[in-house]
Amino acid sequence: MNLLVVGSVALDSVRTPRAEVIDELGGSATYASLAASSLADTGIVAVVGSDFPGSSRDLLYNAAVDLEGLESVEGETFRWSGVYGEDPNDRSTLDTQLNVFADFEPKLPARCRDAPYLFLGNIHPALQTRVLDQVNAPKLVACDTMNFWIEGEREALDRVLPRIDLLLVNDEEVKLLSGETNLLIGARAILEVGPKAVVVKKGEHGAMLVTSEGLFVAPALPLASVIDPTGAGDSFAGGFMGRLTREKGFDEEALRRAIVWGTVTASFCVEHFGVRGVVEMSDEDHAARMAAYRETTRVAY
Amino acid sequence: MNLLVVGSVALDSVRTPRAEVIDELGGSATYASLAASSLADTGIVAVVGSDFPGSSRDLLYNAAVDLEGLESVEGETFRWSGVYGEDPNDRSTLDTQLNVFADFEPKLPARCRDAPYLFLGNIHPALQTRVLDQVNAPKLVACDTMNFWIEGEREALDRVLPRIDLLLVNDEEVKLLSGETNLLIGARAILEVGPKAVVVKKGEHGAMLVTSEGLFVAPALPLASVIDPTGAGDSFAGGFMGRLTREKGFDEEALRRAIVWGTVTASFCVEHFGVRGVVEMSDEDHAARMAAYRETTRVAY
Repeated sequence: MNLLVVGSVALDSVRTPRAEVIDELGGSATYASLAASSLADTGIVAVVGSDFPGSSRDLLYNAAVDLEGLESVEGETFRWSGVYGEDPNDRSTLDTQLNVFADFEPKLPARCRDAPYLFLGNIHPALQTRVLDQVNAPKLVACDTMNFWIEGEREALDRVLPRIDLLLVNDEEVKLLSGETNLLIGARAILEVGPKAVVVKKGEHGAMLVTSEGLFVAPALPLASVIDPTGAGDSFAGGFMGRLTREKGFDEEALRRAIVWGTVTASFCVEHFGVRGVVEMSDEDHAARMAAYRETTRVAY
Repeated sequence: MNLLVVGSVALDSVRTPRAEVIDELGGSATYASLAASSLADTGIVAVVGSDFPGSSRDLLYNAAVDLEGLESVEGETFRWSGVYGEDPNDRSTLDTQLNVFADFEPKLPARCRDAPYLFLGNIHPALQTRVLDQVNAPKLVACDTMNFWIEGEREALDRVLPRIDLLLVNDEEVKLLSGETNLLIGARAILEVGPKAVVVKKGEHGAMLVTSEGLFVAPALPLASVIDPTGAGDSFAGGFMGRLTREKGFDEEALRRAIVWGTVTASFCVEHFGVRGVVEMSDEDHAARMAAYRETTRVAY
């Protein structure tokens, strides 16, 4: 296994102005692993309930995601439901049922412990720490989090940050975590407490990379059709991490290439409900859109 | 005269969380002409009242802005006041006093009529039409507008759009004007009614160029200090137009270069209150930041 993804596997119910889906496969580990699986030998550590559909398990299996670390326990799978407005950036969470995820205790099978690349999806920071305690010196650890943990579990989160290489968060989370209203100053403040790089996910506005040496901004690709933004950030993270496994090191250049790769991956995600966009994306599709991205951002100075 | 700018010259009162200024020189024509004046022989057509400070007139004069078309009439100068929140994107207008601007009737002096480049700043679309009726076949006409005219003077605006080459508006204005929630689809719909290109100003998120042939996105330069965003859009427009006067044509490549130029110009604007950032920006400052921009957006694919 080359890349280990730890996070949630969920059943999402999503309503947009034009459609609705119920109990669709979702979750941070799902999106990230599917987005990475064509690039890296990818495994997940997560938990599902006894109601988790065989078809969803098959979907992950058929995408070559290693499921040895996907624990199945008695009870219901983690469920999230949300609604999007006419503007896909307007998202409201309607309901979150942790279910079996409430007692999730990540246990890493032997072959997961040696994965050189580790992505800690957005779960309780204490669980992220327990994963870090089980792995054998990975080459690169990236970590996501959210406002809920930043506000409610700050001490636990502060124990994670010095142990990771990259923090992948959105712009609001940078501001909340750093206490700074300026994104650049906030991201630089976070570098002081541990991570070598902060990757700021800005949704339709692209992404930003802040390291001690450099600063990089990548716009997102404007899309004529945005159906369901759910999972875009995790698809970005999965594409980003997958691309990094193909690099020799983690220098500024490699991180920049990985950010563009993840940006393009996320563009496929939002064009369909659920995981469909990421699952159906072929290598050729991705390559064609990478070419479109280069054309769309090119300047002949 | 190479570039004519028609718009407002105002006295702005601006409050931010850390400072406040009263009756500072502002207005769309002011910012745009100052941003363009180092690149093009630039003149303005606008109106001020008898209270307009000599020091503000001197500032424009010293920046080599041609003031023959700056009419001075009895009464008070147009005043705008607004307040910004901790997030510089949170802006509320406190007060707008049109004053002498309410009866503004643009009268173009002879040498303004032959300017090959024309920027119609954000004024009543009927006035924009009357400017178009006075000019002698300019090579390029760009035009700004705002929600107030889109919602309240749509018929007058619809008479302007077929007569311009470029529309420079922000993302919300694209959506309002087109009736589309998707920015790309909205911008393309606007192309159908006349302009050859739509330049979408997205503030801290950069800019987008939509033409019949192409699509271009340029992120903004992340800044550690944003003091006062007032005038950023007009500084962008002025830098953009000024740069275009240095090009042979208006092809996709030229427009892209001009967008980056304007983006960099706007970054100087927001670092200070009022026009100071644009006025004090030297050619060397701009060149250095252009280099920083290239470095910040570069990818070694």
